[in-house]
Amino acid sequence: MGNLYIGLLHFPMRNRRGAVVATAMTSVDVHDIARSARTYGVARYFVVTPLPTQQEIAWRIRGFWTEGERAMEASRRGDALEIVTVASDLEQVVEWIREAEGEEPFLVATSAQHRGEPLLGYEDLRKRLQSETEPVLVLFGTGWGMTEELIETCDALLPPIDGVGDFNHLSVRAAVAIILDRLAGTR
Amino acid sequence: MGNLYIGLLHFPMRNRRGAVVATAMTSVDVHDIARSARTYGVARYFVVTPLPTQQEIAWRIRGFWTEGERAMEASRRGDALEIVTVASDLEQVVEWIREAEGEEPFLVATSAQHRGEPLLGYEDLRKRLQSETEPVLVLFGTGWGMTEELIETCDALLPPIDGVGDFNHLSVRAAVAIILDRLAGTR
Repeated sequence: MGNLYIGLLHFPMRNRRGAVVATAMTSVDVHDIARSARTYGVARYFVVTPLPTQQEIAWRIRGFWTEGERAMEASRRGDALEIVTVASDLEQVVEWIREAEGEEPFLVATSAQHRGEPLLGYEDLRKRLQSETEPVLVLFGTGWGMTEELIETCDALLPPIDGVGDFNHLSVRAAVAIILDRLAGTR
Repeated sequence: MGNLYIGLLHFPMRNRRGAVVATAMTSVDVHDIARSARTYGVARYFVVTPLPTQQEIAWRIRGFWTEGERAMEASRRGDALEIVTVASDLEQVVEWIREAEGEEPFLVATSAQHRGEPLLGYEDLRKRLQSETEPVLVLFGTGWGMTEELIETCDALLPPIDGVGDFNHLSVRAAVAIILDRLAGTR
């Protein structure tokens, strides 16, 4: 899965009232998602926020575990956090991947809601990742989800994770773990 | 999945030095796992700790979201936390299920490590859950995992979640989400 990238976006998101906001970064998102990403061989996990103070916090969390004596810990937290890169917006992430891979990533949005857009199935994306070298960037929203405009700028949209019944208020940490297992897990 | 139960155990666990300890409860474990459990139709999520002060905290987290005005929130956090029950040990959980279901649950252990014990595959347990009404209790450890004695008292052990390569230091929140998706997710 050297061609799979993920990004956790904090802007432009909807809040519970539907307004467009920059959400606050959560430290457990940085940790948990880095550990899941590292487990499933994700090439890089981008924490994306326009707020400089939040970027600073994300870098500090990363540094705490990747530098000095903590880096040697048996929990291997440092190995996980090493794949974290902090960025200010999606354009910067795309540019980072273009420089690393020599081509633009295929952009995949995710959403907890059923929407009308044409969907790319999990199995189809799994096959695409395995058969092509093209980089793929899967984006995850925070708060009450990505704006429609942001989803529309992507090349594809994965279906929401349906459980049993009508409740699907998963944490983004859980959603990322499930989606990585569907895309890259050993069966 | 009315017959699927899960338990998050805080004792007897190993710490990083291999000693047997009671681990500290983490509030995000209560929230995240309740949301995942509710999404996948788990009948009840048991937070199990022998420490009365920790039990009190778990009940308080549950109460904060299930009572009063917070219970009406659009995040439906209350709907998730309603399925949380706090217990002091595994025996109490088994007794709870026996009273509710009229029979003892089939006990399934999980582990992040490859062990010698005979394993029950995810697909096999998925089929068993679908075809039988027998209650199944899947147990998750904290800290550095369940003691061997605890695993041996269970009826079966699920294989560790293998990603790509040798890193599999998932958070328990991520592991629960992935395992529930494998056992009860819509394909």
